[in-house]
Amino acid sequence: MNTALRIEEVRLTPILIADPPLLNVQGVHQPYTPRLIIEVVTAEGVVGLGETYGDAKFLEPARALAAALPGRSVTDVNGLYRLAAEVCGRPDGAALGGDVGGLRGTLSADKLLLSVLSGFEVALLDAQGRTLGVPVHALLGGKVRDRVDYSAYLFYRWAEHPGADTPRDDWGAALDPAGIVAQARRFTERYGFGSIKLKGGVFEPDQEIAAIRALAGAFPGMPLRLDPNGGWSVETSVRVAHELRDVLEYLEDPASGTDGMAAVAARAEGVPLATNMCVTTVQEIPEAFARGAVQVVLSDHHYWGGLRRTVELAAVCRTFGVGLSMHSNTHLGISLAAMTHVASVVPNLDYACDTHYPWQSEDVITAPHVFEGGALTVSDAPGLGVELDREALAALHKRWVEDDGRMRDRDDVAAMRVAHPDWEQPVMPRW
Amino acid sequence: MNTALRIEEVRLTPILIADPPLLNVQGVHQPYTPRLIIEVVTAEGVVGLGETYGDAKFLEPARALAAALPGRSVTDVNGLYRLAAEVCGRPDGAALGGDVGGLRGTLSADKLLLSVLSGFEVALLDAQGRTLGVPVHALLGGKVRDRVDYSAYLFYRWAEHPGADTPRDDWGAALDPAGIVAQARRFTERYGFGSIKLKGGVFEPDQEIAAIRALAGAFPGMPLRLDPNGGWSVETSVRVAHELRDVLEYLEDPASGTDGMAAVAARAEGVPLATNMCVTTVQEIPEAFARGAVQVVLSDHHYWGGLRRTVELAAVCRTFGVGLSMHSNTHLGISLAAMTHVASVVPNLDYACDTHYPWQSEDVITAPHVFEGGALTVSDAPGLGVELDREALAALHKRWVEDDGRMRDRDDVAAMRVAHPDWEQPVMPRW
Repeated sequence: MNTALRIEEVRLTPILIADPPLLNVQGVHQPYTPRLIIEVVTAEGVVGLGETYGDAKFLEPARALAAALPGRSVTDVNGLYRLAAEVCGRPDGAALGGDVGGLRGTLSADKLLLSVLSGFEVALLDAQGRTLGVPVHALLGGKVRDRVDYSAYLFYRWAEHPGADTPRDDWGAALDPAGIVAQARRFTERYGFGSIKLKGGVFEPDQEIAAIRALAGAFPGMPLRLDPNGGWSVETSVRVAHELRDVLEYLEDPASGTDGMAAVAARAEGVPLATNMCVTTVQEIPEAFARGAVQVVLSDHHYWGGLRRTVELAAVCRTFGVGLSMHSNTHLGISLAAMTHVASVVPNLDYACDTHYPWQSEDVITAPHVFEGGALTVSDAPGLGVELDREALAALHKRWVEDDGRMRDRDDVAAMRVAHPDWEQPVMPRW
Repeated sequence: MNTALRIEEVRLTPILIADPPLLNVQGVHQPYTPRLIIEVVTAEGVVGLGETYGDAKFLEPARALAAALPGRSVTDVNGLYRLAAEVCGRPDGAALGGDVGGLRGTLSADKLLLSVLSGFEVALLDAQGRTLGVPVHALLGGKVRDRVDYSAYLFYRWAEHPGADTPRDDWGAALDPAGIVAQARRFTERYGFGSIKLKGGVFEPDQEIAAIRALAGAFPGMPLRLDPNGGWSVETSVRVAHELRDVLEYLEDPASGTDGMAAVAARAEGVPLATNMCVTTVQEIPEAFARGAVQVVLSDHHYWGGLRRTVELAAVCRTFGVGLSMHSNTHLGISLAAMTHVASVVPNLDYACDTHYPWQSEDVITAPHVFEGGALTVSDAPGLGVELDREALAALHKRWVEDDGRMRDRDDVAAMRVAHPDWEQPVMPRW
């Protein structure tokens, strides 16, 4: 092995980042949410960066994998999967909350491991690119576009989190159609986004239909999306599709599971159904595609095991004529750089990608990404093209260290209980 | 762009290589068969090697692509597809012999372009790997195995080609079960192959059944395969599957097209059907998979547009639980190196790969590959790990230049007419 490519050390830094009070079908985002920053250091001192979920259940396998990597090559990306199977063990099913489900569908042990792996895969690719002097997109076959379009990601939200010592911002509340339209105006004016998604599943469907109608009125011709995270019955989903069939670019995860999505798709009157819940693993693809349950897969390299696996998912979608775009969960600039690189190499990127990035007021990179015309320019610098801000990282890690344990695992249900003590895990379908 | 990665020049060298009188459903291999050697030269003088089909209909688009590449980066592999669409034009349908079909199924304009592209893609990857100091497998995510298994590829054959000035070898004729068993012994003793494939479609099915039975008797437990290149009716195919169900690892392309293969598969009594004819493009996958027409796809990077596309095909097969192995047409050591690299990175390589390589007495690399224990060791040298033998290349090119035109396009039907003037293009199914 080329010594320059040998992994010498892996550093893991769990952090807590400020997050606004964004509402969804489960509850509300916590004031602070955990992320894990991964640094893969080569024998020559090159540092590759990765980022993934930071909850305790992700940290345990991440530590096992980090300990096993020194001595291996940063080019050995395909070997990560076998290595993880060997060293990470099987996560405790009870710890997963798997039967409860959530915003990403059921969380299985395999899905958890792939989410851990994804952060390491990105860090290996970054280290490899920096060492070899080529951008990550070149390691994935080369970009086919110079800019990647993102979408405005609107949320119903409170003006502020309950309680003292919670992060504040100046976005204000958005709890009705007018508030959503105002939020959309700020998004489009500031960032130039050319499509708009509303996170739904928060209010009665009629209220969310009214919000989409208000957006359609305020932004004529703008592609619009609505995502209630599987919160509706088939009948409700069909009704919403019918009501909004003239303005929706797609309807995202209206109902739960392949059965639910297939039943909606059959009666959706041409409104494509997108998903990041029904199809989140390779195993779910054959039945969902065969039954026409989804028309757009919202890939997420954190779910699918990294950037190479995302490229493969894109090939599967292309082969079967299923659309492709990208999902986002709360993330920082390392993950956004990774998303942008992989989005740049996929020929069939059919829709603008989701990102929570504009909601994040903190970051661990020295030069946060700037959206222009709703897009990011694909970096041609070696690796991902972002640099770690060590002071910021240390401060966010300090917050994690000093946390009393309440924020170290993201739990939107528990966060909602702070304001509404009687809030219960919603039973799906909620409407 | 990093100057070291800039393409300065592309050299194309059509050659004619000696080929034994191997029989198939169409006729017989010519004494010499055309190949094209591609050299991609970077600004710093690094040379990346590629190899593909060399018939006239492949040379024309290859020349257009070669002329368009200087100034681009060797990392821009994904950009090849759009570039080819722009500069190569649409090949003349009549020149393709597309409606005639042949050993690789119908040859469409798209398939021809992908075959041309594949040679360039491999040359770019080789140049990239040499420049960056990493093996091609690392550029594809890293090998998951150190050795790649190949299979003995038996052919019915004459002792020699008719006519003077044709290449000779010492393999002797193989025209009956005893001859096939003798050929298999030499293959397994010399190369250690652990599985055996017989090219069929040459004689009455009962004679080929007898040959497989003889192999099963001589090599108990050895995985056996039979490939008549679509030469049989559904009824004949079902009968052969029934007769050989206890010894066949798979039956390859017994019948033609998705309809034929699906009909056979439904009655094949558990014998998997493999293909390099029914499924040779992305467009053919959905229907063939949905109907269960094929259980093993024999990928070929020359068909599918290169090594990255082969990795994607593997992911599609893995997703749908369809087996994967590799097909081979007559090829030299550059293509065998490329096959070995991509085979090393694919987790789901379910069967030993095909290769014609042992039949080739000539090569354009300085150190021909050596099978040990039926396998090749995956090279960790930068790029493909093979070096061009310029003297050999010049000699084989001289043969192409001096050819009177009869050998520059491979035509197994015409080659058969030299010995049997009344031979006609067989009408399928032949039996």
